[in-house]
Amino acid sequence: MSREIRLDQVQVRDGFWTQMQNLVTDVVIPFQERVLNDKEEGVEKSHAIDNFRIAAGLAEGEFYGMVFQDSDVAKWLEGVAYSLVIKPDADLEARADAIIDIVAQAQQEDGYLNTYFTIKEPEHRWQNLLECHELYCAGHMMEAAAAYYEATGKDKLLHVMERMADHIISRFGNGDGKVKGIPGHQEVEIGLMRMYHVTGKPEYKAMARYFLEERGKDPDFFKEEAKKRDWEHFGMKPEDTKYNQSHATVYEQDEAVGHSVRAVYMYTAMADLAAEDGDEKLLEACRRLWNNMIQKKMYITGGIGATVVGESFSVPYELPNDTVYAETCASIGLVFFAKQMLKSEKRGTYADVMERALYNGIISGMQRDGKRFFYVNPLEVNPGTSGVAAGYEHVIPERPGWYACACCPPNLVRMVTSLGKYAWDEDEGTIWSHLFIGSEASFEKADIRVESSYPWEGCVIYHVAAKCEENFTLAIHIPSYIHHAQLVVKINGRTVVTDAAMKDGYLYLDRSWGSADEVTIEFEMPVRKVYANTKVREDVGCVAIMRGPVVYCFEGVDNGEDIQALFINKELYAQTATGTEGVLEGMTLLDISGKRLTYAGGDDLYCEQAPQTEPVTLRAIPYFAWGNRGLNQMRVWMHEER
Amino acid sequence: MSREIRLDQVQVRDGFWTQMQNLVTDVVIPFQERVLNDKEEGVEKSHAIDNFRIAAGLAEGEFYGMVFQDSDVAKWLEGVAYSLVIKPDADLEARADAIIDIVAQAQQEDGYLNTYFTIKEPEHRWQNLLECHELYCAGHMMEAAAAYYEATGKDKLLHVMERMADHIISRFGNGDGKVKGIPGHQEVEIGLMRMYHVTGKPEYKAMARYFLEERGKDPDFFKEEAKKRDWEHFGMKPEDTKYNQSHATVYEQDEAVGHSVRAVYMYTAMADLAAEDGDEKLLEACRRLWNNMIQKKMYITGGIGATVVGESFSVPYELPNDTVYAETCASIGLVFFAKQMLKSEKRGTYADVMERALYNGIISGMQRDGKRFFYVNPLEVNPGTSGVAAGYEHVIPERPGWYACACCPPNLVRMVTSLGKYAWDEDEGTIWSHLFIGSEASFEKADIRVESSYPWEGCVIYHVAAKCEENFTLAIHIPSYIHHAQLVVKINGRTVVTDAAMKDGYLYLDRSWGSADEVTIEFEMPVRKVYANTKVREDVGCVAIMRGPVVYCFEGVDNGEDIQALFINKELYAQTATGTEGVLEGMTLLDISGKRLTYAGGDDLYCEQAPQTEPVTLRAIPYFAWGNRGLNQMRVWMHEER
Repeated sequence: MSREIRLDQVQVRDGFWTQMQNLVTDVVIPFQERVLNDKEEGVEKSHAIDNFRIAAGLAEGEFYGMVFQDSDVAKWLEGVAYSLVIKPDADLEARADAIIDIVAQAQQEDGYLNTYFTIKEPEHRWQNLLECHELYCAGHMMEAAAAYYEATGKDKLLHVMERMADHIISRFGNGDGKVKGIPGHQEVEIGLMRMYHVTGKPEYKAMARYFLEERGKDPDFFKEEAKKRDWEHFGMKPEDTKYNQSHATVYEQDEAVGHSVRAVYMYTAMADLAAEDGDEKLLEACRRLWNNMIQKKMYITGGIGATVVGESFSVPYELPNDTVYAETCASIGLVFFAKQMLKSEKRGTYADVMERALYNGIISGMQRDGKRFFYVNPLEVNPGTSGVAAGYEHVIPERPGWYACACCPPNLVRMVTSLGKYAWDEDEGTIWSHLFIGSEASFEKADIRVESSYPWEGCVIYHVAAKCEENFTLAIHIPSYIHHAQLVVKINGRTVVTDAAMKDGYLYLDRSWGSADEVTIEFEMPVRKVYANTKVREDVGCVAIMRGPVVYCFEGVDNGEDIQALFINKELYAQTATGTEGVLEGMTLLDISGKRLTYAGGDDLYCEQAPQTEPVTLRAIPYFAWGNRGLNQMRVWMHEER
Repeated sequence: MSREIRLDQVQVRDGFWTQMQNLVTDVVIPFQERVLNDKEEGVEKSHAIDNFRIAAGLAEGEFYGMVFQDSDVAKWLEGVAYSLVIKPDADLEARADAIIDIVAQAQQEDGYLNTYFTIKEPEHRWQNLLECHELYCAGHMMEAAAAYYEATGKDKLLHVMERMADHIISRFGNGDGKVKGIPGHQEVEIGLMRMYHVTGKPEYKAMARYFLEERGKDPDFFKEEAKKRDWEHFGMKPEDTKYNQSHATVYEQDEAVGHSVRAVYMYTAMADLAAEDGDEKLLEACRRLWNNMIQKKMYITGGIGATVVGESFSVPYELPNDTVYAETCASIGLVFFAKQMLKSEKRGTYADVMERALYNGIISGMQRDGKRFFYVNPLEVNPGTSGVAAGYEHVIPERPGWYACACCPPNLVRMVTSLGKYAWDEDEGTIWSHLFIGSEASFEKADIRVESSYPWEGCVIYHVAAKCEENFTLAIHIPSYIHHAQLVVKINGRTVVTDAAMKDGYLYLDRSWGSADEVTIEFEMPVRKVYANTKVREDVGCVAIMRGPVVYCFEGVDNGEDIQALFINKELYAQTATGTEGVLEGMTLLDISGKRLTYAGGDDLYCEQAPQTEPVTLRAIPYFAWGNRGLNQMRVWMHEER
């Protein structure tokens, strides 16, 4: 098993990501701070910090917001923690400390921490695990506590959450007088594992295992719980056990079902625990769920959760592009899961999927100005239909600002600011590079600086400065789309034969490293046509365009009206261009030869003449940048001449 | 304006439709009679006749069923009326008379007739026009009364409904002390017009006009109505005025919106009234709505109402094949509308659409055994998704039996049994044939017998026996798909040059007819590829196959798994075959050359190799016959090689 990478081990220095990290630290975090403090005009009211103040007895007033409003503060604090590592900021840290002081004061005598129930319904604590997110909010605050401790060395929030964890442990579990409860929204399992990683306290890991293993043992748990109370919160149906993955034990589950964020958060904790305990049975369950998700339920953008109904996975191969859900949070959770799987086994599939989600369906969630966000990440939008017509109401074609249910924006913050952690792993004899992200990283055996022209060009240079004399391995993930024949690897300028060194998506370079060695990875980055499994009904006859890790899309602003009538030629002819202005500046754009169909039937809805075709050049832009140039049509999957 | 065709003027004698009429008279009507009397096992309980017995004081008990349960009895009685013309049946007539006796006794002193309110909530009469269907049920019973009178000469039900009409007239309208009410579900307008046609009483027409013209004058009517009561029935939102087309006056409406059955019932009454009064302004409103529907919102099968949400029209060109609604009743209503438009103007579009709906999206609503029915008529079903996955729950892939909301089956009954009326019109100097349906018809100027091998072969013979010596015109609708060059028209064996005689879809044969003249219409019936307007996103790159008026579909039982991976060749090569067994016996089937794509990526969801293709022969069957051979996949729009 790999060690956890510490926050301070890696600093991202990347042409692509540093800009995004700066956007998050300079724009998004301050913006969200204003929102949480109700100082931003024209967005949904948050009241999240005031809720803590009121619960702490520091202010008068009523609770406002969702029952899980606390988690917005937690996720922001977690993002701030990472941000302080990227860019130390004493003022920000002081403000975060002040908020932590308020959070601490909102904690109750017995360790309980939740502003909704403390302010509004203290008599209802822990009675509605199905709907009320107390464990979910606890989990997020545990993550924040662990991150803040890692980032700053300050343990105030950590102690608060240790007390909350102890409170939870005293209340739930198998022992006498304990409730055999499970969370309605998984997340506390991740939080407990993170608390375990920073404190080493085995009871936190044990509690995480309890929650994971208890789940699905009694599929009637939520029904029984509901019978015991005479109130409800959202009107959730306790019998819909698939929604929250309590329909079967984690060992029995082999299909990704239900609410996609709940699912991947659960899988993330499962994978972490499986790695920590070397639990092959649990790991095998993770592998089954991974394979099901990746082989049958994932959009090409790394989006998961195909349906708005329950924000859920749909049936296998059901991946509609226009009624899609693909919540930003779900793709982020997919990366969490992948990274935890990498702890146990270094297989290229995990790094490939991290890359797919990171360069596409995650960052599509944020406007390029950092001020507006998508919950839903469609692969096709059609103004006049998307966001408007029945069945499409959720597929809004332009990013709005803050949301009443504000889970995605802060999740993006913590993802982008902690990116360095996802790029690397380290164990006894090996340093693993999972992502081609420019960074400065410090490991036990070496310091490594990566220069990367990714995702626009195929050149990545690892500057290795060994700190020891013995051999060690630098294992570099080579994305699966890179054809072996197109890959050139050089060490200190001399080409290395890679055939034998490649295993399961990683290039293993085992040698005695010097203090200034240089590994160069070079590869062609052709424009690629990608086909979906023909079982995906929606994509048959269509093709998606990728270059490197980037999925491309076609927008109306570049391609005119009715882009559904555009076909890409059978023989791909594509030219690259570099964006020169606006949001596209510096991005690689594509010009692709195709045809436009023109309907021959006039005003008639149906006619017998085949549509006329005329040659056109289609402009493709990176998917993640769509929707930044006003309301217009967009498609990822384009019809192909056949 | 054409005269109304009387029921006894036309008897259908047709290879295709007589069989279906027999099915309806011999199987469906008795089946529905048992259902209405709660004597059929294994179907949803009806209780509709018992409701009348209870309201009449002839039995004890509670009302059961939908608030519009009465309309099931009305529609059945209407179907029985037509059936008695097709196939006199003294026993059936006696049983219908007995039911009419019960209905008459359920009528209240003041003429009011509605079992729900009479039994259950007499204090709530007429307070909830938005939801409670009192006028809707009245409209259907008026239609039944008019039909029963026409068919049998018996006027008992007619008098009952005259009293009810008078009650309605006394209550609603512009006069002092009257309520400016409008129905929440249009239908009474049709009923009143039919009462007008059989009684000649101008007050019924005036009341129909009132309801049509009042609609939308005060878009807040239902909101105000809702404020006046402290109860609701379904929880319908009174502010959703588009749902029931009360958002604007009928003169202002130019887009088909809202609940599709409500819409076409309203348009039907509008067209009838426009014809009757020679009201060009109202006719122009009808034309606008017709064009909008036909040019932007109609499936190739004649299905309308693209979305399950509100069983409604969607936005223009939004015609998804797999999440479709396309209620059987809506296509029937479309035929009603078309036929009423033909009263005012003989344009081929109306007859074309009647034909499209009749041979496709209407009769697809009934299992070939007459025992099971579709509400929803999808153009694509995928077992495992359709009827199961989120967003597809309503698209059940096999016909169930009776429904709790049983509007479609009896609507099919009255459509099929009254088919003769739709085939013809007559006015001063012209007899109009709208449909190539074999029949014996008696007009003022001639008796005409039509022999038709439609829809399987292009040969229709009109045997004309004139009853007068002066010239008159026989105007025959030539479906728009028949190419002029392929049409051969002969009178008494001599070819007629048709060029000058064709106008707006009708062939005008003006001559001095003898007592045994014969007009032969012959045309090729090639297999045709049909393309949708490229604005219909769902159908781009796809083609539908038609032959004659029949839309074809492709089922899994004939074509194997994953029929979405089948392509039809660019050059159409099709052979016809005749079904030899089971439900397909006697139908023209098609074998079409195509290709099957085979995915090259194994278990991966995405890959870079283009799918492999292998030549295959695809079997197509008439769309209306789909779903008769067990659960399987089905598609109308097939990918086309391009």
